[in-house]
Amino acid sequence: MVNYEFGAGLWMFQQFVDRYATDAYGPAVSTLEAIERAAAVGDIKVLDMNYPFAGEGVTVAQVRETLQRTGLRAQAITPHLYMREFQMGSFTNPDPAVRRKAVDLGKRAIEVAHQLDARYVKFWPGQDGFDYPFQVDYRRLWDYSVEGVRAVAQTDPGMQFAIEYKEKEPRTHMFFSSAARTLLAIEDMGVENVGIVFDLGHSFFAKETPADVLQLVSRRGKLVSVELNDNWREWDDDMAVGSVHLIETLEFLSALHQITWQGPLLLDQFPFREDAIRAAQASIRTIRALDSLLDRLDLGALRATQERQDALEAQRIVMDMLLGAGTTEVSR
Amino acid sequence: MVNYEFGAGLWMFQQFVDRYATDAYGPAVSTLEAIERAAAVGDIKVLDMNYPFAGEGVTVAQVRETLQRTGLRAQAITPHLYMREFQMGSFTNPDPAVRRKAVDLGKRAIEVAHQLDARYVKFWPGQDGFDYPFQVDYRRLWDYSVEGVRAVAQTDPGMQFAIEYKEKEPRTHMFFSSAARTLLAIEDMGVENVGIVFDLGHSFFAKETPADVLQLVSRRGKLVSVELNDNWREWDDDMAVGSVHLIETLEFLSALHQITWQGPLLLDQFPFREDAIRAAQASIRTIRALDSLLDRLDLGALRATQERQDALEAQRIVMDMLLGAGTTEVSR
Amino acid sequence: MVNYEFGAGLWMFQQFVDRYATDAYGPAVSTLEAIERAAAVGDIKVLDMNYPFAGEGVTVAQVRETLQRTGLRAQAITPHLYMREFQMGSFTNPDPAVRRKAVDLGKRAIEVAHQLDARYVKFWPGQDGFDYPFQVDYRRLWDYSVEGVRAVAQTDPGMQFAIEYKEKEPRTHMFFSSAARTLLAIEDMGVENVGIVFDLGHSFFAKETPADVLQLVSRRGKLVSVELNDNWREWDDDMAVGSVHLIETLEFLSALHQITWQGPLLLDQFPFREDAIRAAQASIRTIRALDSLLDRLDLGALRATQERQDALEAQRIVMDMLLGAGTTEVSR
Amino acid sequence: MVNYEFGAGLWMFQQFVDRYATDAYGPAVSTLEAIERAAAVGDIKVLDMNYPFAGEGVTVAQVRETLQRTGLRAQAITPHLYMREFQMGSFTNPDPAVRRKAVDLGKRAIEVAHQLDARYVKFWPGQDGFDYPFQVDYRRLWDYSVEGVRAVAQTDPGMQFAIEYKEKEPRTHMFFSSAARTLLAIEDMGVENVGIVFDLGHSFFAKETPADVLQLVSRRGKLVSVELNDNWREWDDDMAVGSVHLIETLEFLSALHQITWQGPLLLDQFPFREDAIRAAQASIRTIRALDSLLDRLDLGALRATQERQDALEAQRIVMDMLLGAGTTEVSR
Repeated sequence: MVNYEFGAGLWMFQQFVDRYATDAYGPAVSTLEAIERAAAVGDIKVLDMNYPFAGEGVTVAQVRETLQRTGLRAQAITPHLYMREFQMGSFTNPDPAVRRKAVDLGKRAIEVAHQLDARYVKFWPGQDGFDYPFQVDYRRLWDYSVEGVRAVAQTDPGMQFAIEYKEKEPRTHMFFSSAARTLLAIEDMGVENVGIVFDLGHSFFAKETPADVLQLVSRRGKLVSVELNDNWREWDDDMAVGSVHLIETLEFLSALHQITWQGPLLLDQFPFREDAIRAAQASIRTIRALDSLLDRLDLGALRATQERQDALEAQRIVMDMLLGAGTTEVSR
Repeated sequence: MVNYEFGAGLWMFQQFVDRYATDAYGPAVSTLEAIERAAAVGDIKVLDMNYPFAGEGVTVAQVRETLQRTGLRAQAITPHLYMREFQMGSFTNPDPAVRRKAVDLGKRAIEVAHQLDARYVKFWPGQDGFDYPFQVDYRRLWDYSVEGVRAVAQTDPGMQFAIEYKEKEPRTHMFFSSAARTLLAIEDMGVENVGIVFDLGHSFFAKETPADVLQLVSRRGKLVSVELNDNWREWDDDMAVGSVHLIETLEFLSALHQITWQGPLLLDQFPFREDAIRAAQASIRTIRALDSLLDRLDLGALRATQERQDALEAQRIVMDMLLGAGTTEVSR
Repeated sequence: MVNYEFGAGLWMFQQFVDRYATDAYGPAVSTLEAIERAAAVGDIKVLDMNYPFAGEGVTVAQVRETLQRTGLRAQAITPHLYMREFQMGSFTNPDPAVRRKAVDLGKRAIEVAHQLDARYVKFWPGQDGFDYPFQVDYRRLWDYSVEGVRAVAQTDPGMQFAIEYKEKEPRTHMFFSSAARTLLAIEDMGVENVGIVFDLGHSFFAKETPADVLQLVSRRGKLVSVELNDNWREWDDDMAVGSVHLIETLEFLSALHQITWQGPLLLDQFPFREDAIRAAQASIRTIRALDSLLDRLDLGALRATQERQDALEAQRIVMDMLLGAGTTEVSR
Repeated sequence: MVNYEFGAGLWMFQQFVDRYATDAYGPAVSTLEAIERAAAVGDIKVLDMNYPFAGEGVTVAQVRETLQRTGLRAQAITPHLYMREFQMGSFTNPDPAVRRKAVDLGKRAIEVAHQLDARYVKFWPGQDGFDYPFQVDYRRLWDYSVEGVRAVAQTDPGMQFAIEYKEKEPRTHMFFSSAARTLLAIEDMGVENVGIVFDLGHSFFAKETPADVLQLVSRRGKLVSVELNDNWREWDDDMAVGSVHLIETLEFLSALHQITWQGPLLLDQFPFREDAIRAAQASIRTIRALDSLLDRLDLGALRATQERQDALEAQRIVMDMLLGAGTTEVSR
């Protein structure tokens, strides 16, 4: 069992709205209040924070002060590339003026990252992509995406950047849709400081096998960060970790051991109808319980089984680990 | 070709927001302004309108006046059962006080429907359902859903009610998820004045065969209204009609002929990044073009082919109709 | 923990072929040999058996003798309505002569069911449906399906019949595709002796919530039998129970308690690349382990939580049950 | 309109079987007979042929003679890497002896390709992958896949090789599952003579945007061949071209123009219940009709629209092209 440091996307402690409950699921929450909430979880130590901040006139100095006071640390800065002004795209916007704005916002995010000692700047260009057949020239979309991220990354070779891919939403088709595609685009950027944020839920959503794709990204040296959550595999539901895909989450944690990931594990949840603090605690409790289960795992036996690709023996090992010695005795 | 009357859900002319672009895709639009926009489409004659109305202090009298002035008509009133206060459910809310509120809002919608001469009150209980495994007692959910709709419907046996089913969103699982399930629930209600709004996009989304399910609903006498749009079949994207599923939309229009539906046809779109008026015009143009194609159809030949269930001959008939005589000549 | 009797579809011990490995995944296995294999599992007591039998000249008497010798019992007879002669459909075949053949085969299955003291005759009309848009008249398909099943069921009101629904395969669209749709069709049959075989994997595949739909079928008095397996939710992969959807399988077992199901649990697996006997044992071991977990469940606490529809508390209860006291201590 | 040469996977004229209709959908067909059937289509000129051949003792000489007599040409040789002996995998088989057999079969396919003047050897390692969680070590699977294909490709640097990716079936997870992943694996092979067979249906199935991914493959210089068919996007249904995804097929044909693909276009269909010759003719007719529609397309207007990413204007252009001048006049 790894003694992971935990973190969260700060948005999970802020206000949620969707296209139906337009009066929002709760009151507005400033970035400063959200940090306080995150601190109240108890185990959250690092944060991925959106920039610009939420709340009238909130400054970087205030954010730094609140982080220090609560004992939290900025892990990442994620520029808001998907608000109204970027509705037709950020890096892939048809208007060159808006594309420049996206790059400028990326650069401001770098400054904030430096000011808050964040480890990386994250790009999640949620409005980059298309909605309709025949709407775009796909080569153009590829080039704009590659050029936009590169333009920001080149301005600060010492800063780490990371792309979080997702298949869709809010666009019906997002450009950075899968791990493999994003790796190809990163190759085309030709820079060394852009990698990938592996979001477990996005991997489920993309119908990937997370434990497989984690290795793919890791072996190419492009794994920058890991976010966890769960969903029903057909949408980015951002639910508590392990609530639906328990066995695959366990396999994913096992893969984290395999690549000797030491890093923090960040939660990316949208608890629309739940208390955010309890929702974070639930996920951390589950992650720890699953990770401690892996201590029971006879890794040698599992590796030998996998050498033979013996599905049923692998099942037996997993079920024994998961359902426990006491239980399986009953079952024999 | 049927000379259909067209309509729309009024929301398509209002403000859109989602969980990312929380500053909305455009400015706020009151119910009155939205009616003006709907009128500007040119072919929209009837409206499905949300109640409570959007905009500070907008009254029923103002709405009626605006409808009259623009030559539009209220077709349906849809109570806002999915705002913040109903986030844990309307008819299935665990709190009996909120369930009563939902019924009360349904009753107010009846009054408004009478005042505006609307043909039916629509229920789309988007927050009724569940998100997590083990979260609810499914029997309880069934009973609450049946009781809630019945409670409203029984207060006015002369009013027509209609349920619009959808598989999910905003809940990860909505209660009224498919046509067949909704028909069973309506049976359990034991009232005569509740039927179904058939939303083409929701049928695609539920992985139904729309032309098949339309007949199922129609033969049981439960078809109250028809809404059209399109999506990528994995989410309720609310796109322009025919933009993705052209052939199945054509088959659906053919099924409307078969059940001798006389209209109206309502649009249910969310043109987040497009002009709403153009988006409505695009759909109407496509529907008319497709419907006029059906005039070319040798219905006798199609029926004979279907008697034999001859897939390739059916394909030939459809492609000839769709791609036209001139084109197919080229192709022979 | 219920001391369930276990059973299996006999096909899981026979030969598998698919459209690629046309030389089959193993040698041919007669019905008699397959019974021997089923007996070798140790816990399999009842069988759902295809008719006509596999193997040159195998007779009902031989089958009865083999069952007696091995201590197994026929639970169901499933007529082979999906072989070459029924490729264009059995009950929905466009040719009335083939439809009659399907009914005749159904009647022969009744005779065999009586001779082997089977509890029900199962219909799985895998070739009934359609592949292409515009291929069929959906009303005709509905009527043929209802009439065909009714025609068989009416010939023996003392025999129980059951329909196993599935969304697709081998047809791209099967007629009896979901529980709700099948319940509506059964209503239209107007006979009392037709119900539903609830196949857990088919329910996953249809994107149903199995624990929910089990209750729906049960409350309408139409639950005849229960089959278990697992899949990746996008195809009928017929894998070992609980291997993918562990939590939902647990919830399903809990729902079986709720409806006080006493009956046998049948396995429906296709272990293409695994040993069938081990594959059956793996599923039974998992079912027993999961079912014994339910003994740990504080049912009162769960029901109270579900009354409040409290997702996170339900998660806590499930995770505590599943991950065990020892583990969760670690995690606190 | 491009005057494409047409081809087909020869299997579409052979015998079909699946796991239910184990007595097959029709009689056995030898490779020689299948060539005769392909020739009977009229427009089929080139073939992708499985090796070993079907039929007792069929020789390369006989195949060559039959090709010559019928005026057809071998385009590709596809070794049968997915029969019984490879059920646990070909290149990724846990047994090194079977992996060697796979490489050996690949080498024999090269010889046959030379003897028949085929342009490329195709790998479709349908049994390479996994079925269950925890069954395999994903890094091992990656390495075996890369090494296996490379081992064959290196033996003949003058021969072209091509991988046909597919998401799943017969495995629940195939290794070469998407275009982007396959491109990454090809990079790792470090050889110049391995590319991709772009199968339109597999691209739909992988939830890719075919016109987009075609460009991705083409720009990297890895496009070797193009196969066409259609499906319902959730399985490899191998249906007639354009029967479901008409608009996306049209967009794909437009992308073929953009990359100036000169053909041939191969059909990959499994007409289980249809006449194979008619099924091929239907697809060719549809492809030609759609391709001739593109002549009506105002490409300048489309490109300008795509520069603006104007979804509704793109829709208008497509609908005008598709539904024709006469029809759209009616609709205005």
